[in-house]
Amino acid sequence: MNRQLNNYNCKDALVTDFYEFTMSNGYFLNSPANKTAYFDLFFRRIPDNGGFAILAGLAQAIDWLKNIHFSTEDVEYLREQGVLDNAFLDYLKNFRFSCDVWAIPEGTPVFPGVPLITVRGPVVEAQFIETMLLLIINHQSLIATKANRMVRAAGNRRVIEFGTRRAHGADSAIYGARAAYIGGADATSCTAAGQLFGIPVAGTMAHSWVQLFDSEYDAFRAYAETYPGNCVLLADTYNTLQSGVPNAIRVFRDVLLPMGCRPKAIRIDSGDITYLANKARRLLDDGGFPDCQIIATNSLDEYIIRDMLLQGAKVDCFGVGERLITAASDPVFGGVYKLAAIEDESGNIIPKIKISENIAKLTTPCFKRPWRLYDRESGKALADVLLLHDEVINDDEEYEIFDPDHIWKRKKIRNFRAMPLQKQIFSKGRPIYTSPSVGKIRNHCIAETETLWDEVKRFENPHRYYVDLSQALWEQRAALLQ
Amino acid sequence: MNRQLNNYNCKDALVTDFYEFTMSNGYFLNSPANKTAYFDLFFRRIPDNGGFAILAGLAQAIDWLKNIHFSTEDVEYLREQGVLDNAFLDYLKNFRFSCDVWAIPEGTPVFPGVPLITVRGPVVEAQFIETMLLLIINHQSLIATKANRMVRAAGNRRVIEFGTRRAHGADSAIYGARAAYIGGADATSCTAAGQLFGIPVAGTMAHSWVQLFDSEYDAFRAYAETYPGNCVLLADTYNTLQSGVPNAIRVFRDVLLPMGCRPKAIRIDSGDITYLANKARRLLDDGGFPDCQIIATNSLDEYIIRDMLLQGAKVDCFGVGERLITAASDPVFGGVYKLAAIEDESGNIIPKIKISENIAKLTTPCFKRPWRLYDRESGKALADVLLLHDEVINDDEEYEIFDPDHIWKRKKIRNFRAMPLQKQIFSKGRPIYTSPSVGKIRNHCIAETETLWDEVKRFENPHRYYVDLSQALWEQRAALLQ
Repeated sequence: MNRQLNNYNCKDALVTDFYEFTMSNGYFLNSPANKTAYFDLFFRRIPDNGGFAILAGLAQAIDWLKNIHFSTEDVEYLREQGVLDNAFLDYLKNFRFSCDVWAIPEGTPVFPGVPLITVRGPVVEAQFIETMLLLIINHQSLIATKANRMVRAAGNRRVIEFGTRRAHGADSAIYGARAAYIGGADATSCTAAGQLFGIPVAGTMAHSWVQLFDSEYDAFRAYAETYPGNCVLLADTYNTLQSGVPNAIRVFRDVLLPMGCRPKAIRIDSGDITYLANKARRLLDDGGFPDCQIIATNSLDEYIIRDMLLQGAKVDCFGVGERLITAASDPVFGGVYKLAAIEDESGNIIPKIKISENIAKLTTPCFKRPWRLYDRESGKALADVLLLHDEVINDDEEYEIFDPDHIWKRKKIRNFRAMPLQKQIFSKGRPIYTSPSVGKIRNHCIAETETLWDEVKRFENPHRYYVDLSQALWEQRAALLQ
Repeated sequence: MNRQLNNYNCKDALVTDFYEFTMSNGYFLNSPANKTAYFDLFFRRIPDNGGFAILAGLAQAIDWLKNIHFSTEDVEYLREQGVLDNAFLDYLKNFRFSCDVWAIPEGTPVFPGVPLITVRGPVVEAQFIETMLLLIINHQSLIATKANRMVRAAGNRRVIEFGTRRAHGADSAIYGARAAYIGGADATSCTAAGQLFGIPVAGTMAHSWVQLFDSEYDAFRAYAETYPGNCVLLADTYNTLQSGVPNAIRVFRDVLLPMGCRPKAIRIDSGDITYLANKARRLLDDGGFPDCQIIATNSLDEYIIRDMLLQGAKVDCFGVGERLITAASDPVFGGVYKLAAIEDESGNIIPKIKISENIAKLTTPCFKRPWRLYDRESGKALADVLLLHDEVINDDEEYEIFDPDHIWKRKKIRNFRAMPLQKQIFSKGRPIYTSPSVGKIRNHCIAETETLWDEVKRFENPHRYYVDLSQALWEQRAALLQ
């Protein structure tokens, strides 16, 4: 990787809700300007009613935070809106990010209500970064979570992300491909994502290739001659079983075998793919190519993949497009960014809560830290517990967890390992965390997903993983609710 | 607008499926390289089972086509993949787009099967541009279509696009805001979209504003003092009717009236918004502020807006976020790019068809032009007809249209106006079309949507608008199907 597109930077600081400016301007002009605020980024609902989500996007969030600046044109554009104060606009010209930021590493399975990112700093800054932090984390976590579902459905078969043409803009394709890889996809069709992040890229031919030659055989022959070592033929342009597969086998024999090459795969993109794949498998086996794989594409998702495999589809690799890159069945990751506390003039931390008409929109107050408890014997994750920032869990001792909404439900746990989930990534605006490569993030995702019980990984009615509060945090919340 | 982010350019030519490279390299090395190909970009299904879609994204597609180039780093990255020929890689270094392109103007209501964009040129180039053309047009048409549904549901009430934080990447926010505006939204919260395209931006405060002050009254007061001419207060942080609206009214009286100002609006973001809005309306009216508008937000879409208004919700403005910016109920616009014809050595146009296991995936062959027929009396659109490229419809004479799938269904039409839908936008690679401003595109959308019968605009079971073939095109297709 010898270049950096710096995509989020080039679009700079105006990719944000205008209310971040009206609020920041207002804070700047009013007393809260000097206050230190604590914000938590968290989500409330797992897409597709799944049992967990995969956090992704932190590297891009860090890039964006590192580079916030307002050009002269930006400031002039904001001035033209006629509502922001000149002193605030001057402040923006010299804007320097000075917050502390803590975050859970990318690729970690995460749960509703857990602070994924915590920001502490001057309220003007801490407020301003809301929209773009949410945008980046929501998008990539959505796609990583969806990809992980598809990968789990596919078992040990390969999953390739093919969705660029149905992505919601170029970023959606590039960063969606990154997130899909983190979630467990094996490769992407998006060349720019390959270039930027070192993700393996894949791709062979479309139907137009087959149509552009005088016959399907000629098209396959030309492809095999051009790519003898990487011969994947699209078999469904005319008739998969009558024409596509037989022509592929002829070309494998006529072109590849004499060159000492073996075919890689055929691809089927229409029709009843389970039926066609199984018939094609038989033809390939009988034709002497049991090593030729079958790739299935065409609006697949985890449910279709699961059904195909339940019916014994002889498919070796799934190409997933639109339903992955848009997370079509549930395309919103509802991360929010909420005030948790402020500091008064003496530096005391004052917890803040938002009480809403919707109970689900209640927030958890206080400057806090999420911890995860793992069973030492099985290695499995037992629960997340939110602690006040200065609390710790001593995992040499027994620890009691309890359901914060039904506090009589209590459980004493022993022989466990307790780990704070967040790492500090900015110290007074200075980046102090180096993002791992996407390959390492992907491995972290695989390893951490392994720590989840199967009950949490189900598609239907997954077990609700425990996200509890420490006794001290619970008491602070109860006091505020009074 | 004094700047150009040139977003699609900065990410250049690698935002594309890798198979465009394997195919283009293959064409380059094989006989089809010299052939001229004709591709159509069209879609097969209207999102949300609607009656029509709104085409958007052409300006960005033109920008992208104008600027395709491969940097040294791009070419080296491609070389490292180990499958592309050196001669082809050298060709990419000096790539120059030389195709002819025709397209339907943005903002036009469009229908399945109609060529939205037609490309004619050397097969290597015409193939290569597939992925990015689709990505841009699919994304913006998806969002413009969704926005138009919400705007229609809202009647004459304002609709503001608020979705940036739930967008699938920054492009999804910026270009989604553009598309939403084209589809009829009145403003956006996305500051960058305002700056780039001159779209009105909107935004006031979040719950954090209210929480950061010592009381809701203090928070409202500070806001009113800061923005007396643009006072919109978020009323649901604690209790909308007991606290939010009464505090808003106190602040309107205490701060705005003495300054000679009137309030703009209150915003309600949770709870049963229909109920709360109507109660709030009464409180505001009784408090002497019948001119204070009510803005509703919180996961709205066209169905919820319609239901709210059916139940008499006193809402003046809808802020729509995640369900617009992701087109959540149906987030895929399935535009495809298919070979329609090639030229042989003598320049004869040879039509091409793709026959698939799925009947719906059948393509319409030939170099063709879509026309639209309008009734002269009502001004309403009667049908689209696809003609061979050198055919014309003389609207001084009677013209017979027929259903291409059930050819006994025929209809003679008179007193109509016939108009070709596409305009040429590139001539041998030279851009010859200037995109209108988004404001003009939006007006075009409003005017052209007016030409559709109400039956086509229904949400449930809309009338299927006729997309017919000329007799000559039908015969060519029938001959190929034989």
